[in-house]
Amino acid sequence: MDKFRIAILGCGTVGGGVAKIILEQAQSLAIKSGKQIEIAKILDLFPTKSSVRHGIPLELFCGNGKDPAKEDMPKYTQEILDDKSIDLVIETIGGSSESLLNTVTGVLNSGKHLVTANKALLAKYNKTIIDTAFKNNKAVGFEAAVCGAIPIIKGINECFTGDEITCVQGIMNGTSNYILSKMANEGKSFADALKSAQEKGYAEADPTLDINGHDAGHKLIILLKLIYGLDVSVDELPIFGIDTITAEDTAFAKEIGAVIKLICFAKKENDGVYATVRPMMVRDENFLSEIDNATNAVKVTGKYSYENIMVGQGAGSTETGSAIVSDVVFIARYGTESLRNYPSQDLKFLSFDEMKIAYNITFEAEDMPGITGIITTAIGSENINIETVSHNVRTSGETAIFSIATMPCTFVQIQRAIEKIRQQNAKILRVDPKIIPILG
Amino acid sequence: MDKFRIAILGCGTVGGGVAKIILEQAQSLAIKSGKQIEIAKILDLFPTKSSVRHGIPLELFCGNGKDPAKEDMPKYTQEILDDKSIDLVIETIGGSSESLLNTVTGVLNSGKHLVTANKALLAKYNKTIIDTAFKNNKAVGFEAAVCGAIPIIKGINECFTGDEITCVQGIMNGTSNYILSKMANEGKSFADALKSAQEKGYAEADPTLDINGHDAGHKLIILLKLIYGLDVSVDELPIFGIDTITAEDTAFAKEIGAVIKLICFAKKENDGVYATVRPMMVRDENFLSEIDNATNAVKVTGKYSYENIMVGQGAGSTETGSAIVSDVVFIARYGTESLRNYPSQDLKFLSFDEMKIAYNITFEAEDMPGITGIITTAIGSENINIETVSHNVRTSGETAIFSIATMPCTFVQIQRAIEKIRQQNAKILRVDPKIIPILG
Repeated sequence: MDKFRIAILGCGTVGGGVAKIILEQAQSLAIKSGKQIEIAKILDLFPTKSSVRHGIPLELFCGNGKDPAKEDMPKYTQEILDDKSIDLVIETIGGSSESLLNTVTGVLNSGKHLVTANKALLAKYNKTIIDTAFKNNKAVGFEAAVCGAIPIIKGINECFTGDEITCVQGIMNGTSNYILSKMANEGKSFADALKSAQEKGYAEADPTLDINGHDAGHKLIILLKLIYGLDVSVDELPIFGIDTITAEDTAFAKEIGAVIKLICFAKKENDGVYATVRPMMVRDENFLSEIDNATNAVKVTGKYSYENIMVGQGAGSTETGSAIVSDVVFIARYGTESLRNYPSQDLKFLSFDEMKIAYNITFEAEDMPGITGIITTAIGSENINIETVSHNVRTSGETAIFSIATMPCTFVQIQRAIEKIRQQNAKILRVDPKIIPILG
Repeated sequence: MDKFRIAILGCGTVGGGVAKIILEQAQSLAIKSGKQIEIAKILDLFPTKSSVRHGIPLELFCGNGKDPAKEDMPKYTQEILDDKSIDLVIETIGGSSESLLNTVTGVLNSGKHLVTANKALLAKYNKTIIDTAFKNNKAVGFEAAVCGAIPIIKGINECFTGDEITCVQGIMNGTSNYILSKMANEGKSFADALKSAQEKGYAEADPTLDINGHDAGHKLIILLKLIYGLDVSVDELPIFGIDTITAEDTAFAKEIGAVIKLICFAKKENDGVYATVRPMMVRDENFLSEIDNATNAVKVTGKYSYENIMVGQGAGSTETGSAIVSDVVFIARYGTESLRNYPSQDLKFLSFDEMKIAYNITFEAEDMPGITGIITTAIGSENINIETVSHNVRTSGETAIFSIATMPCTFVQIQRAIEKIRQQNAKILRVDPKIIPILG
């Protein structure tokens, strides 16, 4: 049986999981891939620690049994790139620096296949990496970059290929979903739920990218390219995080039979695609409302197969590791054939604010007779149909807080309605109304 | 671009869906597969009807625009096998006759790839078909044979390959799930729910294979071969249908926070695999409890990635059709490489009756003081821990009906406990207790 030799750059949580699985499953992986998959070399700053943590023989690491000096890393990387016996390199270092981009394009330029879990790097340099892969006729696997163990990349590339994907809805960030679940199920405030996530190890010490939606945004950007051939940058994608969500929003969601989730959303209509990442109120009848804690889920709607839902673990050492190993098996078996041209459908990237969807609008208004009439009249005058008006939450200081759930309309229509309310009485609205889409 | 020419044998619900998708998606399929996928010929008994129903040009059918005579079918089939320009044949005729086996092996022997949705044929002749494929170095696709649009076959073969699958739980028969949902959610009797399924078109006029669990059994047999390399026949697999489930069982399930589902179950333990198809009480915390109506779902548990759940449509014209087209794309792209050796892990096929799992036992007993004591004492004496004892349902005629939910134990232990009760008083149990596993 032919050998298929791999190197691993970065042996932290994910890289260590990969090494562990490849060592434990050698025989089974050989049957699945048709090749003897072998770890040639692992590069990490702390082999002595990594070796113990993941149960990996120390001699597999660069550095001859010692922790290599930081300044020697480029030399070791180059040794791996120069090693003609290595077929594939796994990048599990993380980050999106230009230097890391040079490393991964270096892998491809040295005639090796590449597997990476790095969503930030792909979201930023997708085109450069894929172009380099085609130039060298080498494959790139990135199953682990989107939703960890959920096979959404192979799902799109290899499984739902008999369909035309019209809509994607996903819970793709475990940390924010854990926080939102705690808020919905235990009535916690955002701050308390975040603290609990950090204590449980679901959130990093600096959870910025999870909380502000950008981690989820990176994943959606990868999917937009994969499914629709769209090049969208982080700046172009409308991304909103969960840090503005309050216990009150959670309660208003409950009142309309929904829970708040951070949703990655893309929808094709005619010759364009609407896409956004933002908190949405997901109705109970939508399966995504059931996905709690750090679990991820993606719902793919197709023209022919209706709804396909995949649920699984979006993070974790062996969870994400197993996704990377599945890429190794796939590339060992099918080689460069697995490198696909991205579709070029000449689709436009459309503004989500112009898409028709139901919204929940929470008003903090002066608590006076006739206030509901003023607001609902303004909404009606913009041709927005109202589905329900929530119960008032009265606070001290003569402020009434209540929510209106609309039938499908655009964000732009809602903004015009709010403008009308303000024109009528500039002081009626105490703060800007909070506008959250409702996902049926 | 190279052409990839296909023929379709049988243009009913599924075959028609396939043709429709291939005609509508020609351009997109070419990008995905790298080949121009083209329908060379369709063989069906009623082209004039099929052509209208699915919007397929009549000239694609055998018979020169007329419905071919039944006795001419072998001649037309042979013409397709002899046509060297055809790369792949799709079998959507159905049935598991020896004559159909000869047709599909004929496809492979004539040097063409094969795609089939035929679970009954595969469950019966798996080995023959795969051996013939290897002999001719041709691929076999059967994504559509198990759970329609859910990509469980490619899931196992291509996606979860970085994992070791330890357990599979699935709702794989839409008809029976529809019936059980109606019983659970609307309190219908089995007979009324079946009637509703037939009216809605979810159940055939003869629903035997759906109701008795054999259709689900065929699917599990295919998965057992794929995941564990086990050859299990319909006679060897313990299969129980849903026709014995009553409104009372549904109520007892509700009392322990569960719903009854027809579950395809396989679990690897050490050097063996337990497998069965039968109604189980699925607890609310198990995602499968949420799967209602005709929807299918499979939960795959792996050593490294924990739980992966896939939900989708298990039947339907374009739903199943899209799964077949995904096989066509995969084979057009990867060719015979996609034909995998089944794993040979030398695993034993173990008796489910020896597996430890929680059970719900419903007793119909003489309504006399001390009856609960007699029964629970007998159960305890067999080292079975009791989790809950349900409320009694008292019927006229001095019969008490109640359920006991056990902690994990074996069916064999329960049988011994029942034997003890009978030894103590032969008349205490009015009928054989109903024993249903509980899935946590």
